[in-house]
Amino acid sequence: MSDIPFAGDPVFDLHLGGKMAIVPTAPVANRDDLSMAYTPGVARVCTAIAQDPSLTQHYTWVPNTVAVVTDGTAVLGLGDIGPAAAMPVMEGKAILFKAFGNVDGIPICLDTTDTDEIIETVIRMAPSFGGINLEDISAPRCFEIEDRLREALDIPVFHDDQHGTAIVTLAALKNALKLTGRNPEDTRVVISGAGAAGVAVTKILLNAGITDIVVLDRAGIVHSGREHLTESKADLAAITADISGRTGGYGEALDGADVFIGLSGGTVPDEFVATMAEDAIIFAMANPNPEIHPDVAHKYARVVATGRSDFPNQINNVLAFPGVFRGAFDAKARKITEGMKLAAANALAELVGDDLAEEYIIPAPFDPRVGPAVAAAVAAQAKLEGVTR
Amino acid sequence: MSDIPFAGDPVFDLHLGGKMAIVPTAPVANRDDLSMAYTPGVARVCTAIAQDPSLTQHYTWVPNTVAVVTDGTAVLGLGDIGPAAAMPVMEGKAILFKAFGNVDGIPICLDTTDTDEIIETVIRMAPSFGGINLEDISAPRCFEIEDRLREALDIPVFHDDQHGTAIVTLAALKNALKLTGRNPEDTRVVISGAGAAGVAVTKILLNAGITDIVVLDRAGIVHSGREHLTESKADLAAITADISGRTGGYGEALDGADVFIGLSGGTVPDEFVATMAEDAIIFAMANPNPEIHPDVAHKYARVVATGRSDFPNQINNVLAFPGVFRGAFDAKARKITEGMKLAAANALAELVGDDLAEEYIIPAPFDPRVGPAVAAAVAAQAKLEGVTR
Repeated sequence: MSDIPFAGDPVFDLHLGGKMAIVPTAPVANRDDLSMAYTPGVARVCTAIAQDPSLTQHYTWVPNTVAVVTDGTAVLGLGDIGPAAAMPVMEGKAILFKAFGNVDGIPICLDTTDTDEIIETVIRMAPSFGGINLEDISAPRCFEIEDRLREALDIPVFHDDQHGTAIVTLAALKNALKLTGRNPEDTRVVISGAGAAGVAVTKILLNAGITDIVVLDRAGIVHSGREHLTESKADLAAITADISGRTGGYGEALDGADVFIGLSGGTVPDEFVATMAEDAIIFAMANPNPEIHPDVAHKYARVVATGRSDFPNQINNVLAFPGVFRGAFDAKARKITEGMKLAAANALAELVGDDLAEEYIIPAPFDPRVGPAVAAAVAAQAKLEGVTR
Repeated sequence: MSDIPFAGDPVFDLHLGGKMAIVPTAPVANRDDLSMAYTPGVARVCTAIAQDPSLTQHYTWVPNTVAVVTDGTAVLGLGDIGPAAAMPVMEGKAILFKAFGNVDGIPICLDTTDTDEIIETVIRMAPSFGGINLEDISAPRCFEIEDRLREALDIPVFHDDQHGTAIVTLAALKNALKLTGRNPEDTRVVISGAGAAGVAVTKILLNAGITDIVVLDRAGIVHSGREHLTESKADLAAITADISGRTGGYGEALDGADVFIGLSGGTVPDEFVATMAEDAIIFAMANPNPEIHPDVAHKYARVVATGRSDFPNQINNVLAFPGVFRGAFDAKARKITEGMKLAAANALAELVGDDLAEEYIIPAPFDPRVGPAVAAAVAAQAKLEGVTR
């Protein structure tokens, strides 16, 4: 018997020793190898890069690497568990980057939750990486951190909890609207959750032409008539409920709504779900407990999706982030634009093609077409927009 | 023809795409794998670590990783070439860590040369790593950076330019003294170079019982009668030339000296080398141009070593750092002590055994016994000193 706690549990056994490793891709088996990969040979490569920093793109691993950066404040549904306990998720993310996008992800768990310190730390590390994937940093700090890093750095910066979720949600919604014969401009959407994912999903839906959106937090619909709104919620109110003038709670929000998107956890009472429009669309994405259980959702909705792998239509970020960075790296993009995110969502939606059906609005995570299709669309858009090196 | 600059040059071709990559060590080939390595399974591992942080040692890759941290200010013999141009050396170091010690090295090139900023950045990143290997940071900042990081962190911190060089130099010198029938306490040593390596070699020789040392910088012997000494040089003077009262330049230093250790570059004139003691020992370790060319050194010395792979007795840090961290990690050491460094040097020296000869005072870098022997000695010493977790 091992004396390691939890040994014998299959999930813990799989994690033993961690989930990733470094491998040399250049030979170091003999003296000649060493003289090329290390001194004295390497000095010529260093000198060349010192004279022309763009050579970093060819002669280092940097352009294929992404730092998976967290402060451990909003890890999965677990909340603020700190940087050490966040590491298994960051390793998981890193190996998904590799498996689905051939991107080298390096987990960086930071021992600070201060916005300024996180920003300056990432800026100082930045020469080591080709991109920055922010992960599981709590709102509203995540917004400022991403904004300021995008401003400061000349490499892709992407907060996956926001934009990964937004891309896969939009992809699934495009197909659900097509299936139910809706136009974006006539569609009423209710989003539960005003955190990182809620804000980003709202923005991408607006960019995709969906204009009638309300967002709810625990106090109900986020509108500017409410007191004590944070800055990010005030901004959110201005582009959603303030336009339609809607106020209230789930009752007011869901009555006649076409689409429910759950990004919050919690449970939505059946009686409100029952008031949604005909052929309703329900994405209940909380893990492990969807805001509306699929068994209930199917009573009132024509299209149902969750974040879970054991129901049809799994809306999972792994459909997006590996291909997004692969495409950005392939195009040598300096940033990830709104256009590139929309291109990723379109590419994902289009993969479903003529097989579109109530139980197939989004490709499966292990569909081998996904990563390459997203990467190609993102790279093409980056070139179109001229945001490449 | 490729349009990539330097393509076709074998050294550059070897560097194409970098020299390292990430590999998953846990499977992510299907839905079940994903549910264990990522959500929902991973949440249980995170929760367990949040409750008992020591589980990081078992269920993450952290305890086998070392950040190879530089600011690019003292790279090889190239000097201050900046963080981007330093990357090929850091990647080289990382793959040597893997090949010779099965340690996962992650290059971190920092976009700051400010002492406080480097220290606080490394402290903030520290939950991501099992150890910190400082690399190619210029003196005297490197001393304060290492000291304060050792103080602040509960993981091994090691400045290889100092301690790696010190370990391999001491190992070679022990065997050279044995071969020439000298006792440490009767041996007069001259060290050329008062930077990171010079300081560390001086300290390890003192710890090994060699008491008569002078160190020279460009202005000659470092002694406290000189004006404008930096703090580190004043400290150095107090433990070296001030004790013997020696002053002057190479002429005064080398006259009758037993050992010359070159850690500086530059050239020592023949006429001074000629005045060394009988059966002299010359380690001329500058790369690619030794301070005393071996052809010259052999005229006046019995034992000659360099840093080059094309002469006998190559004194190369790769003999030390992979095994030092392997041993520290195997023992779950919280730090790397002076005792552990001496143990590493002894283990290296002892590997030569009865084969000791003028042209074989130190094992070759590719001797497969080296890494395991150093690791075992370092781990045993860590346990002996009780500096383990």
